[in-house]
Amino acid sequence: MKKSFPRPMSLSRVKITDELYGSYVNLVAEKIIPYQWDILNDRVPGAEKSHCVENFRIAAGESQGDHYGPVFCDTDAYKWLEAVAYCIENGSDGRYEPTADDLIDLIGRAQRPNGYLNTYYTVVSPGQRWLNLTEGHELYSAGHLMEAAVAYYKATGKDKLLQIACKFADLICEVFGSGQKQCQGYPGHQEIELALVKLYHATGRARYLELADFFIKERGVRPNYLIEEIQRRQGNGLFKEFADYDEEYAQSHQPPVEQKTAEGHAVRALYMYAAMADLAIEQDDQQLNEACLKLWNNITTKRMHITGGVGTSGHLERFTVDYDLPNNSTYCESCASIALMMFGQRMASLTGDASFYDIVEKSLCNTVLAGIAVTGDKYFYVNPLEVWPENCKPSTSMSHVKPVRQPWFPVACCPPNIARTLASLAQYIYSQDDLSLYINQFISSELETSLEGAKIKLKLESSFMQDGLVTIQVQASAACSLKIRMPGYCDYPDFTLDGSGVIPTVENNYAVFILNGNGEYEISMKYEVKPHFVAANHRVRADAGKAALVKGPYVYCLEEVDNGSELSNIFIDTTANIQEGMPLAGMPGRLPVIKYSGKKIISSIADDSQLYGKPVWKFDDVNLTAVPYCLWCNREVGEMLVWQKVERLI
Amino acid sequence: MKKSFPRPMSLSRVKITDELYGSYVNLVAEKIIPYQWDILNDRVPGAEKSHCVENFRIAAGESQGDHYGPVFCDTDAYKWLEAVAYCIENGSDGRYEPTADDLIDLIGRAQRPNGYLNTYYTVVSPGQRWLNLTEGHELYSAGHLMEAAVAYYKATGKDKLLQIACKFADLICEVFGSGQKQCQGYPGHQEIELALVKLYHATGRARYLELADFFIKERGVRPNYLIEEIQRRQGNGLFKEFADYDEEYAQSHQPPVEQKTAEGHAVRALYMYAAMADLAIEQDDQQLNEACLKLWNNITTKRMHITGGVGTSGHLERFTVDYDLPNNSTYCESCASIALMMFGQRMASLTGDASFYDIVEKSLCNTVLAGIAVTGDKYFYVNPLEVWPENCKPSTSMSHVKPVRQPWFPVACCPPNIARTLASLAQYIYSQDDLSLYINQFISSELETSLEGAKIKLKLESSFMQDGLVTIQVQASAACSLKIRMPGYCDYPDFTLDGSGVIPTVENNYAVFILNGNGEYEISMKYEVKPHFVAANHRVRADAGKAALVKGPYVYCLEEVDNGSELSNIFIDTTANIQEGMPLAGMPGRLPVIKYSGKKIISSIADDSQLYGKPVWKFDDVNLTAVPYCLWCNREVGEMLVWQKVERLI
Repeated sequence: MKKSFPRPMSLSRVKITDELYGSYVNLVAEKIIPYQWDILNDRVPGAEKSHCVENFRIAAGESQGDHYGPVFCDTDAYKWLEAVAYCIENGSDGRYEPTADDLIDLIGRAQRPNGYLNTYYTVVSPGQRWLNLTEGHELYSAGHLMEAAVAYYKATGKDKLLQIACKFADLICEVFGSGQKQCQGYPGHQEIELALVKLYHATGRARYLELADFFIKERGVRPNYLIEEIQRRQGNGLFKEFADYDEEYAQSHQPPVEQKTAEGHAVRALYMYAAMADLAIEQDDQQLNEACLKLWNNITTKRMHITGGVGTSGHLERFTVDYDLPNNSTYCESCASIALMMFGQRMASLTGDASFYDIVEKSLCNTVLAGIAVTGDKYFYVNPLEVWPENCKPSTSMSHVKPVRQPWFPVACCPPNIARTLASLAQYIYSQDDLSLYINQFISSELETSLEGAKIKLKLESSFMQDGLVTIQVQASAACSLKIRMPGYCDYPDFTLDGSGVIPTVENNYAVFILNGNGEYEISMKYEVKPHFVAANHRVRADAGKAALVKGPYVYCLEEVDNGSELSNIFIDTTANIQEGMPLAGMPGRLPVIKYSGKKIISSIADDSQLYGKPVWKFDDVNLTAVPYCLWCNREVGEMLVWQKVERLI
Repeated sequence: MKKSFPRPMSLSRVKITDELYGSYVNLVAEKIIPYQWDILNDRVPGAEKSHCVENFRIAAGESQGDHYGPVFCDTDAYKWLEAVAYCIENGSDGRYEPTADDLIDLIGRAQRPNGYLNTYYTVVSPGQRWLNLTEGHELYSAGHLMEAAVAYYKATGKDKLLQIACKFADLICEVFGSGQKQCQGYPGHQEIELALVKLYHATGRARYLELADFFIKERGVRPNYLIEEIQRRQGNGLFKEFADYDEEYAQSHQPPVEQKTAEGHAVRALYMYAAMADLAIEQDDQQLNEACLKLWNNITTKRMHITGGVGTSGHLERFTVDYDLPNNSTYCESCASIALMMFGQRMASLTGDASFYDIVEKSLCNTVLAGIAVTGDKYFYVNPLEVWPENCKPSTSMSHVKPVRQPWFPVACCPPNIARTLASLAQYIYSQDDLSLYINQFISSELETSLEGAKIKLKLESSFMQDGLVTIQVQASAACSLKIRMPGYCDYPDFTLDGSGVIPTVENNYAVFILNGNGEYEISMKYEVKPHFVAANHRVRADAGKAALVKGPYVYCLEEVDNGSELSNIFIDTTANIQEGMPLAGMPGRLPVIKYSGKKIISSIADDSQLYGKPVWKFDDVNLTAVPYCLWCNREVGEMLVWQKVERLI
């Protein structure tokens, strides 16, 4: 019998009622979808030009003009469609369905008769199709088309976009493969692999799964396809930053199954690892499974910021080396943390272990939420853990760090990626296999689903970040099991079942409740979720002697608006009293601020007009206010700091 | 009467006998000149290709082949010639004079009949002369030719190179200027301005001084010549990193006389400021004088590392913003500190104030000396204050930092610049005006010179870095004054004159001794030069809560070879006992090492296999050994750290 892996929940079965996340889900529907539609149509004054929809019109022959934007510009439309689909499926809003249908029609008209679909190559260089896999992003763009198509089909039952995607996928299946007349290349930017698995699930066509498998297996084979392709082009490339292209950058230095450390461009890496986990599930492949575990462990125990931010090099958005986690110059692309969520979700499915969701949660509630303003119309691409706005200028090495969220970007992958992630948040809350329902996040919500033989209605109410309490009311029509993730960062909680204390079995970091049969049940968990300081491994040079404040999965930070400038002069006492304070006014989710006292250097040398001198440290006592990292920079521009110096270590 | 400014001493009058600097001066003659000659002729296996001499052969029509190397490659030969000239003039070695004569002959044959001289433009794109001042470096290269020519003429009396330089300079005087048929451009990379002043001094031809003045006055005038030139080229440039060219980069954003903060490429800026000081002296120009003072103060009180390193952005070797002094990602090009020495020397001449020599000394004895291995054949281009070799890789944002000195560079400005600086060190030790001899550095040496009416023989013996003692024996043929710099970083010393305690007058940070007439005098100074810790201004975010160890002008650092890895985990007690220890074996100059104790975090969380956790700080007591920064990385590759965390600030 084939092993039963827990699968993410369909969005239509879940209604998110959570104060914090519910507001973000609604924000996608109410604000982000319309805003991004305006952006894609170049109707937002002052924002970076997108030209995305117009590119499709030009490709369809319905408008004159030049293509504008990066080669992967089409994906902004695809991710927008995917977000619209999720809004329809999760029930938050269907207003944009007609607009989406029109866009899908336009996309269909831009598709070439043979199925090929890419506005850049259609408009700008039709003769160059598939000749620049390293940089051309045709397969990457196709992947996002497939993801959108599957989502829109699931949400609406309309198969027009699915047909478009399948027609293109079929062409790709013809072009790529191990056959003599086929191309033995693979994407320079991975993403189509996981999309092909989705397309396989939506259509049942095994060829899509086989192509995903081909792309993973062919990668890293000698001679290196991408390097040979670059040599064939003799230096004529699309991106100047690829002049020093190396194999690690796109994870083609080894066959993926042999890779042990996370290397190269973080988003490419993590989309690929997610696809590897997909294939490990689909094919029950032990070697891929082990490779995924090694890569996961390398990232989460050596190459990840406490915010779930990954890819710590300002140069090409890359992974670097173990314990290289600079706070101010790091990259931590919003998309990379989204991709880490995707990888973690699949690893949880693959292993049945809840602990992967700790990292999913960490990435979500810190870096991904920080990636978007609470108003929905401004975004961070780069998510450092320390910001000094004055030195984030083009003339410094810090020009990749924007001290304020931006309306849009020349490379605009992050904003629609955040939108589709928030709109599909339910998939990260619940999963199920044949016999069990898994609760993976404490996000207040309602669920109706069916397991093998049992219908379940469930209501989850969480005030986890206020008082540590999570209550689950379940109606089950028959016996089934409920598995509730136990976060690794909390001590064992007090459980009750129908009001009586219980000590459930724990399996794979899930508390397991066997519901005996038809009936109503109430389970509660009371966690202690107090704010406290954590340290980093002593090998993390950037954090030596420092501590970060966390409460549950949320990382806190100091902002200039509350604590003045020169945050690096603050010293804290990690053993002193910490108080929770009222949430920030106007911010979603009632996340408390945290107050504590510290000391701040106000001068360090006798003559303050000089640069160096005999140490004469003068301190002020200061009252500090830390706010959730995910909400930083929603009030005023200013300095921000996560890792704070500890006053008395010894 | 024209004001008498102190002028640097002619090298021929000084014999450096200093243990440390004497060994470097000899190293230039014995090792560096031959090594760099081999490099320029591509005879060093494993080093970056230079092709410099071969380029001249090709330009002279005496060899076939392509030009190789950057557009300013000729300057490597010019700076080598300049260093050879200084070795001849300072008496350390004349062996390379025949080789230099041959090279000069070759350079002469590569010169075009109209005087134009530049191998790149002659060989590669003769039609493009003077059309790309922004990037083409023709004027920069001409400047280095002039400097070499003046030096070689002064050293040998041979005027062949001077004739070549003047012929080119005359052409440049024709091409550039305010006349209707002349070009109103100016160099993209400044340096010719100060070279023209030297050429004026060597030849007495005022047109060279006037051209220097024109280049400074024309710069920053609207419309901006360089920006218009870039627009005319329509994106066809030489350097990809100039895609985002801005006016500040080459200090053309304002007329230099109006500039108040140091902006843009540090070497360009400082060569220009040096020329501005030259012109302020030559023209007794108060406005230029004031501009120079403002720029100097901005640099030395807000934008300079404690090592005298400047230009703190890894992006384009630039100045950034006030107090932005990152330790690991900084640039601090060796050439920039050489240029700072040049600017400081001229400011001391302009103002008659010794304090400028504090910065000259700081730059010299830290960054410039660190730029070269004690073996003379390896060089740093970039001089950070904190190095973790593992993360200095192409895949990180730290690829500009090389953790070990290199045999040569694709852009090889630094090695020959260090050579010519060390070979001409005497110019920084002594200066004189009509009536006074100035002693600006405590570098053991002997001097014979003449003031107006007085001949002086002097012997300076310094064990300043060992016991703080400096002794000066003087024979004067007539009354004159001797002005001895009093370093700003020391307390007032004990002075003796002929064995008796005296308290000399202090003017402009010089101790003034009036020698009454013909006779012999012995002056001694006993300073207290103990190692001690200093702090940075509290606005320097990178150094908050840290201290650096200094002894006199020398900055010390911790190296992995003495103190293990993870130097960032070390905490020091700035009030504890500090001991001087034996100098490092095999290193020049008997600079003591410094020993003290500290504590080192050996683990910070309970489970060392994890990345984050509850703080559980564990420390080891450690015995630390700090070594002079200028000698770091002469033993083993490893971590290095200047700014150390302080254990008990409060």
